[in-house]
Amino acid sequence: MSDAAGRAGLAAEAAALDAADRLHAKRREFVLDEDTVYLDGNSLGALPRAVQPRLAEVVGREWGRLRIRSWAESGWWTAPERTGDRIGRLIGAGPGQVVVGDSTSVNVFKAVVGAVRMAAPGEGRDEILVDAATFPTDGYIAGSAARLTGCRLRPVAAGAMADAAGPRTAAALVNHVDYRTGRLYDLPAITAAVRAAGARVVWDLCHSAGALPVALDADGADFAVGCTYKYLNGGPGSPAFLYVRREHQPRFDSPLPGWNSHADPFAMSPHYRPAEGAVCGRVGTPEILSLLALEAALEVWDGVELTAVRAKSLALTDFFLRCAAAYLPPGLVEPLTPEAHRERGSQVSLRCVRGGADEAMTELARRGVVGDFRRPDVLRFGFTPLYTGFAETERAARTLGEVLACR
Amino acid sequence: MSDAAGRAGLAAEAAALDAADRLHAKRREFVLDEDTVYLDGNSLGALPRAVQPRLAEVVGREWGRLRIRSWAESGWWTAPERTGDRIGRLIGAGPGQVVVGDSTSVNVFKAVVGAVRMAAPGEGRDEILVDAATFPTDGYIAGSAARLTGCRLRPVAAGAMADAAGPRTAAALVNHVDYRTGRLYDLPAITAAVRAAGARVVWDLCHSAGALPVALDADGADFAVGCTYKYLNGGPGSPAFLYVRREHQPRFDSPLPGWNSHADPFAMSPHYRPAEGAVCGRVGTPEILSLLALEAALEVWDGVELTAVRAKSLALTDFFLRCAAAYLPPGLVEPLTPEAHRERGSQVSLRCVRGGADEAMTELARRGVVGDFRRPDVLRFGFTPLYTGFAETERAARTLGEVLACR
Repeated sequence: MSDAAGRAGLAAEAAALDAADRLHAKRREFVLDEDTVYLDGNSLGALPRAVQPRLAEVVGREWGRLRIRSWAESGWWTAPERTGDRIGRLIGAGPGQVVVGDSTSVNVFKAVVGAVRMAAPGEGRDEILVDAATFPTDGYIAGSAARLTGCRLRPVAAGAMADAAGPRTAAALVNHVDYRTGRLYDLPAITAAVRAAGARVVWDLCHSAGALPVALDADGADFAVGCTYKYLNGGPGSPAFLYVRREHQPRFDSPLPGWNSHADPFAMSPHYRPAEGAVCGRVGTPEILSLLALEAALEVWDGVELTAVRAKSLALTDFFLRCAAAYLPPGLVEPLTPEAHRERGSQVSLRCVRGGADEAMTELARRGVVGDFRRPDVLRFGFTPLYTGFAETERAARTLGEVLACR
Repeated sequence: MSDAAGRAGLAAEAAALDAADRLHAKRREFVLDEDTVYLDGNSLGALPRAVQPRLAEVVGREWGRLRIRSWAESGWWTAPERTGDRIGRLIGAGPGQVVVGDSTSVNVFKAVVGAVRMAAPGEGRDEILVDAATFPTDGYIAGSAARLTGCRLRPVAAGAMADAAGPRTAAALVNHVDYRTGRLYDLPAITAAVRAAGARVVWDLCHSAGALPVALDADGADFAVGCTYKYLNGGPGSPAFLYVRREHQPRFDSPLPGWNSHADPFAMSPHYRPAEGAVCGRVGTPEILSLLALEAALEVWDGVELTAVRAKSLALTDFFLRCAAAYLPPGLVEPLTPEAHRERGSQVSLRCVRGGADEAMTELARRGVVGDFRRPDVLRFGFTPLYTGFAETERAARTLGEVLACR
């Protein structure tokens, strides 16, 4: 088959896949320009159309006219839990266990210290395991949590976490999907193993929330955190979430016991008494504009099932890998993302074996295909099934082939 | 003098004061309805007109069109320090020492732990002093900082802080203005005394930033935190700020060493190395929509000197107290706010000696005068010189008199 025929075949296949895609209509709920293939939704999700009018209302009417009354009358005060429940549905968490606020880093701190404090005194659990390839902030924060609680931090490959957890382990902090390679780890199995060792597991869902089904309640997860600006499209730096399993809430001992998590915050008591429910994970006053933008952004998930998202995600990444195999000059890149579906998140990472990844990504963006570059040599492409199509995917791989061929 | 003549006299005086007010024109930069006297700007500042159009641009163009590119091209990444410098001018901090992000509670945690860690090992400093009447979150968080660093928390009246600091004191956390009474404490004197005792002082400026002149650099303050949604009008839950004195920055050892405070965040190094400058106080990804709304809100301060703000603030609270003395039925309320200017913030708190404060505030709001109620018996009125006028002040006191007379 000639190159041209191969290209025509893949393009035709893409058109057929788009025509059959049941999520295709969701794309219209986002602001997108048709000239650009945006494959960086795993860094910053595209703008849902519902956000701009909602934010205009929040600023103009709720802040501008009602002002202080909006804390009660516009539901500002309860937005962290309300938005948490919306996210809960997407990560397999029943109501009252997820709260939105603060950054992922701050939530990692709450969860890891909280997990360590659940170990009974005298149990001798003085070790925190952390995913050795973790997004760095998790490691830095886990290190701080270890230092402040008298624990030792031990980096362990996520794949070896199940075996590493032992009688000295207090908590294990694991990424569900590796940010760099896109590798998906086995949440149910690792959770079971860590818990069987008598320790608590904290999952970082930054690269899986909104990308694939997660079943925190069913799988027995203790704690989870994640950001909302990637697959959840909450906007730049939108607040992160914290999941505290219901049965742990009465014992959750937050290292950041701010007044918003007090059982009766307006009593202004000098004595701290934690609230029940997901509220126990709050700290200070939430950043309402960012939070309510996120809440509006989450409306795109109404009626969407994560199984459908996952099916399309795998179809997109499969198709991208096939297109890349067809279009890319041989020997220049190697996929870091696993071929097996059960080990693949919603991104494809390609390592440039002869370097030049940074320049290649810059040129790719100039040609209208936006992914991102991770030092030293990784091209990263995120596939967001709510708004990414197959024709775009084919174009992205084709353009990448053209860029690499010029080198 | 008859009541009517007294009323007419105060109304005429208010009109004259408004006519002579050099800040009067600033009011036009805010969204306000003329029917309401808004005296709750010490809880949530009014909406500056610059915010709505700026936020529409941030969402529509920067997020919606440029998406990920905006982290560099729209200056999102550096917004915490840039906005921090804008606030720095208002609190007497030279550039590079203030960073914006997270809540006040989270910044209290960074500052108090950071302050404790500055004590040399072996110095035996194992005590954290906290303002006994503090806004509760400061006390809760200082308690957590104490527990995590092996210190003891000792509540001390803010006025006694200077005498209380001693050889065992590691850090003292003090409110510049008491949120409940409106009492202003002597920042230079307390700072000097705490430092003379070899300890570090952390100032909470929530009720003074934007309300009166603060001179952190000149007065030798070690750390400071504050919110931005009161007198700085940043919007609901807008991000807080953290001041780390320049000379302390190289030794600032954050308990929340998130990737945003790394010297080279995109190196994604597993080893934490803190950035220089105010960046050392960052943690995770900032909530950009709330942060850039704040940045736009701060434009109202261009060309405004805090000495003029302070002069008007004192004139407003003096006038309110005079009007209250003239209009309020005798014996029902007593001012908690000190009469002496050097001890007064920018609010007036009135204690309802026979109770009923909650109902009185509700009725007052129904009549178009918005203040707030603090349990158990305090009516609190905040005076925000950029948009509060004297005629409004007279109306507020007169209406309060009418409400109390009905009881």
